[in-house]
Amino acid sequence: VADRPTARRADATRNRERILRSAREAFGEADLEVSMAEVARRSGVGSATLYRNFPSRRDLLEALYVDEVDEICAAAATVDGAGAGARFTAWLHRFFEFATSKRSIAIGLLEHSDRSNPVFRTSRDRVLAAGRPLLSAARERGEITEDLTLEQILDLLVAVAKIPGDPDHLRAMLRTVLAGLRHRAEDVPGDAD
Amino acid sequence: VADRPTARRADATRNRERILRSAREAFGEADLEVSMAEVARRSGVGSATLYRNFPSRRDLLEALYVDEVDEICAAAATVDGAGAGARFTAWLHRFFEFATSKRSIAIGLLEHSDRSNPVFRTSRDRVLAAGRPLLSAARERGEITEDLTLEQILDLLVAVAKIPGDPDHLRAMLRTVLAGLRHRAEDVPGDAD
Repeated sequence: VADRPTARRADATRNRERILRSAREAFGEADLEVSMAEVARRSGVGSATLYRNFPSRRDLLEALYVDEVDEICAAAATVDGAGAGARFTAWLHRFFEFATSKRSIAIGLLEHSDRSNPVFRTSRDRVLAAGRPLLSAARERGEITEDLTLEQILDLLVAVAKIPGDPDHLRAMLRTVLAGLRHRAEDVPGDAD
Repeated sequence: VADRPTARRADATRNRERILRSAREAFGEADLEVSMAEVARRSGVGSATLYRNFPSRRDLLEALYVDEVDEICAAAATVDGAGAGARFTAWLHRFFEFATSKRSIAIGLLEHSDRSNPVFRTSRDRVLAAGRPLLSAARERGEITEDLTLEQILDLLVAVAKIPGDPDHLRAMLRTVLAGLRHRAEDVPGDAD
């Protein structure tokens, strides 16, 4: 009798995770055109359970988004590379994969909802905090220039991620941006125009 | 008597140019929140004249856009720089200034209207045709890498131009992109993730 509440909690957690997994697949396949009813059907839970976990479609999208942010932050500690510059760059690749593969969810949510949403502000701060030590280490070794702040670097990656086109097309642009991060920018005569 | 039609045509041209000049100023100051009535008032023409020249607000926006494209294309022939790479880069700066300063008109129009609009397709082709000789010359001298096509380079610049932020903030990112164009991109270990 004593373990019933625990079992119930474990059940609830399983349901929540099952919903998130199915929702991630469904949104990934069908852009944002997925109804709550479809999410309930695919995850095999009743709609009461779905709505108890995620009172609105937006709550569900936010939870998916936060999950991805958790992964990006965790990757900063585990990412591999020969040297600080390579590790920072590898992490940027992970961030970029997130920004492109999750574009439907993250960008959709971003654009259809309030940008002042605390979920976004918090996520941004968390990602910046996770990436900052990698950037500092790469700079100390002179492997990444001082030309841009981490905020600017991530803004640049998000901008590239939003360009329409297939992943290879975008990845080539990402590589150019990364090459730019390794080489000091010059002032260009045309600048004053 | 013989020159009356000519005089009338000259008048019509003057009106058209006056409207375009006032509209450019008005849109530049007030984003896209400018009514046709306001354009008529500022250019000092009657609304009949305005609508005879530009039957809709969209026709007016398109004309403004095409004017800017003309300037960008013309700049490809006149742009200055010490060497082919510098000339190409100077032209990209011009293109970028266009993309940022005209963001309200060009991007507004782009986003509020059909992307299959022939005005955009034609403009894109014209800009590509204007820039291609500059890129080829810069590549022949080894001053710009072969990593990206001109289409990708311009897409990248437009993406940077759309990032929210003040011009200096954006120009720093542009310089990083341009530095990337001058240095061969490397494959990064994280790439396969």
